[in-house]
Amino acid sequence: MNFNFELIKKDAHGSARTGRIKTAHGEIHTPAFMAVGTQGTVKALTPDMLRDLGAEIILGNTYHLYLRPGHEGIARGGGLHRFMNWRGPILTDSGGYQVFSLGALRKISEEGVMFQSHIDGSRHFLTPELAIDIQLALGSDIMMCLDECTPYPVTSGEAEISLARTLRWAKRCDEQRKNSPAALFGIVQGGMSMDLRKKSLEGLMEFPFEGLALGGLSVGEPKEEMLSIVGEMTPQLPEDRPRYIMGVGTPEDLVNCVACGADMFDCVMPTRSARHGLLFTSGEKIVIKHARYRDDHSPLDALCDCYTCRNYSRAYLRHLFVSGEILGMILNTIHNLRHYMALMERIREAINNDCFKQFKVQD
Amino acid sequence: MNFNFELIKKDAHGSARTGRIKTAHGEIHTPAFMAVGTQGTVKALTPDMLRDLGAEIILGNTYHLYLRPGHEGIARGGGLHRFMNWRGPILTDSGGYQVFSLGALRKISEEGVMFQSHIDGSRHFLTPELAIDIQLALGSDIMMCLDECTPYPVTSGEAEISLARTLRWAKRCDEQRKNSPAALFGIVQGGMSMDLRKKSLEGLMEFPFEGLALGGLSVGEPKEEMLSIVGEMTPQLPEDRPRYIMGVGTPEDLVNCVACGADMFDCVMPTRSARHGLLFTSGEKIVIKHARYRDDHSPLDALCDCYTCRNYSRAYLRHLFVSGEILGMILNTIHNLRHYMALMERIREAINNDCFKQFKVQD
Repeated sequence: MNFNFELIKKDAHGSARTGRIKTAHGEIHTPAFMAVGTQGTVKALTPDMLRDLGAEIILGNTYHLYLRPGHEGIARGGGLHRFMNWRGPILTDSGGYQVFSLGALRKISEEGVMFQSHIDGSRHFLTPELAIDIQLALGSDIMMCLDECTPYPVTSGEAEISLARTLRWAKRCDEQRKNSPAALFGIVQGGMSMDLRKKSLEGLMEFPFEGLALGGLSVGEPKEEMLSIVGEMTPQLPEDRPRYIMGVGTPEDLVNCVACGADMFDCVMPTRSARHGLLFTSGEKIVIKHARYRDDHSPLDALCDCYTCRNYSRAYLRHLFVSGEILGMILNTIHNLRHYMALMERIREAINNDCFKQFKVQD
Repeated sequence: MNFNFELIKKDAHGSARTGRIKTAHGEIHTPAFMAVGTQGTVKALTPDMLRDLGAEIILGNTYHLYLRPGHEGIARGGGLHRFMNWRGPILTDSGGYQVFSLGALRKISEEGVMFQSHIDGSRHFLTPELAIDIQLALGSDIMMCLDECTPYPVTSGEAEISLARTLRWAKRCDEQRKNSPAALFGIVQGGMSMDLRKKSLEGLMEFPFEGLALGGLSVGEPKEEMLSIVGEMTPQLPEDRPRYIMGVGTPEDLVNCVACGADMFDCVMPTRSARHGLLFTSGEKIVIKHARYRDDHSPLDALCDCYTCRNYSRAYLRHLFVSGEILGMILNTIHNLRHYMALMERIREAINNDCFKQFKVQD
C-alpha cells in the first residue's frame, strides 16, 4: 500500500488537526486543499505554476477523463501523472458526482448507472467495478468509491434506498481494487439526515478504506445544514484516517470544517472564480472588471506573495480581463489558488502552534 | 540616445549579417524575431515564459493600447514595461497599420487619420505627433513613424500621393520626438513599385532615423512580389542601421529576408497559429486536432528543446485542444515561439560561422 497517514498535531482546544499523507508521488500536508484538474489540467495553469504556488495534490475527474480522451489511452501513455506532467499525488473522484449531475441523461440500477455523454450523447454504463478500473488505469494515488450522490432536498425514503445501494457499491469497489497499492476512500452519504449519515458510516467501517469522505454536501443545501452535518459527522470519522469533505468550499467554509476535524477539501471555487474575474484577497473580494480599478496601480493584494501580486497591478489585471486576454485567466488563477494554499498553510501553522481557536478569515 | 547598433558579422558569401542592438532595457541579437504583444501581452504567455524561450524584444501595438487601456493610464502606472512586467526592450508600431486596416472606419487627410474604434465606435484622430506622443508615454525603446500603409493592389498615382504624405509625416514624427532617448525608425513605403520604394528611401534618408523598415508588405501580395521588393530594397537600406521587415513572416520568409540583409521581423503567425492548433516542427507542420494524434505519446517535435516538447505528448496537446483548455494555447504558443526563436539562433550561428549559404528550413 503506497499510502500512509500520520497525525502530527491535535488542537489542544478543539477538533482541528494537522497530519501528513505519504504516497508514491510525494507527501501531502493536511489540512490540504486540492485544486481541481477536471480534464487533465488545472485550468489555465502549467504544473510548474501549481507547484510554485504550493499545491501538493490535485484532483482528477474520472467522468471527464473516461469520456475524453479515455482512460485506456492515458494508460498507454504511462498514466495520468505523465500525461499531464504533474509529478505530485493525484486523487481521482469516482465519476459518480458528475454522472448524477446529468439529471435526465442518466438512469440508475443496482448494477450501476446508465448515462449519456454531455459531449456527444453517446451511452455509457458506469459500474462500481468500472469506476475503480478507470481510476486504476489513470494511476490514481487516492481513489474514491462510486457512490450515489442524492440531490437536495431528498425524501428520507429515497435517501435510505440510495444509501443501502451506495454501501453495496462500496463493497464492490473494495473487491475490485484487489491488491492495488493505491488508496481507496469510502464516502459517507445520507443526505441531511444525521441518522442516515451515521448508518452510512457504520456500513463503511466494515471495509478497510484508507480514508473516509463526506459526500453529498454543497449540493444546494443551506450553509447551516452543511456545517451541521460536517460538525456532527466529522468527529465521528475514524481519527487515524484522513477525513475529506468533498466539494467544499469558501475560505470561511474551510476554516469551519477544519475546526470540526476535517483534513482534505476540493472545490472549483478559486479556479472558476478566477476565470470570471472574482478575486479573493486578505480584505474584500474584488470584481476586477470594475471601472474603479482602471487606474489602480497597486497590487491586487499587498499582503499576498503570489507571482501575480508581486508583479502586476489591478489596472493591468482589469485591462487583461476586459480585453479577454488569456494571461488574465492565468494570473487570476495563480492568485486565487495561492490565496487558498496560503490559507491552508496558515491554518496548519496555527494548529501546530495551538492558536487555531483564534483563527479568523475574511470571506 | 539609448540606442546603439553594432554589426558583428557580414556573411562572406552574401548579404546576411549579424548584429547587436543595445537599448536601455537590454540587448537584442540580430537577426531577431519579435513576438507580437498586441494588447500589452503576448497572448497566452507570462513574460517569464517569453524570456525562457529566448525572446529578447517584443512588439507592442500603439493602436490597441491607445484605445484600451489608454496610454495615459499606462504612463501613470510607470510605462508599458512595468505595466506588463516585461523587462526587456519593446518596439512599438505607430498604429498606422491597424488604422488603415479599418477600411471604411477611417478617413485620411494631410493632418492625420480620423478613425472609429473597433471596440465601441468612438471617433479618434491619429496624427504623426499623437503617434509619437503615445509611444513616448508607453516608454517604447524603439518607436515607429506614422506611415500610410497602402493596400494591395494600388495604382501608382495613389501610391505616389500616399508616399509623399508619408514622407511629410516622417518629418513631423522626427520633430515630435524632440530629445527623447528612444530610437525612431522610418518606414519605406511605395507599394510594389521599385521606383517609388527608392524615392521613399531617399526621402527618409534626410532624417536621422536610427533604423529603417520596409512597410506595406504581407498585405495580400504574391510571395514573389514581397521577396522581390525585399531582395531589391534591403541591400539599399543603410548598412550601419537595423533593417526591419514589418509583418514577415513564415520561417522560410525569415531565412529568405535574412539572406537579403534584413535584421528584424515581427509577425503574429507563430502565436496566432498556436492558438488555432497549427504547430511548426522541424518536419511538417502539425494540425494537432487530427485524430491521428489521439494515441501518439511522442513529443510534438523530438528535436525541439521547448518546455512543451520536453514535457508533453502529442496526445496530451490534442486532448487539450479538442477540450478547449487554456493550457493547450499556452503550451502551443510556447512551442511555436520557441520554434521561431531557435530558428533565429541557428540563423545567427550560421552567419557567424560563414555557413548561412547552406541554410535550409522546412516550411
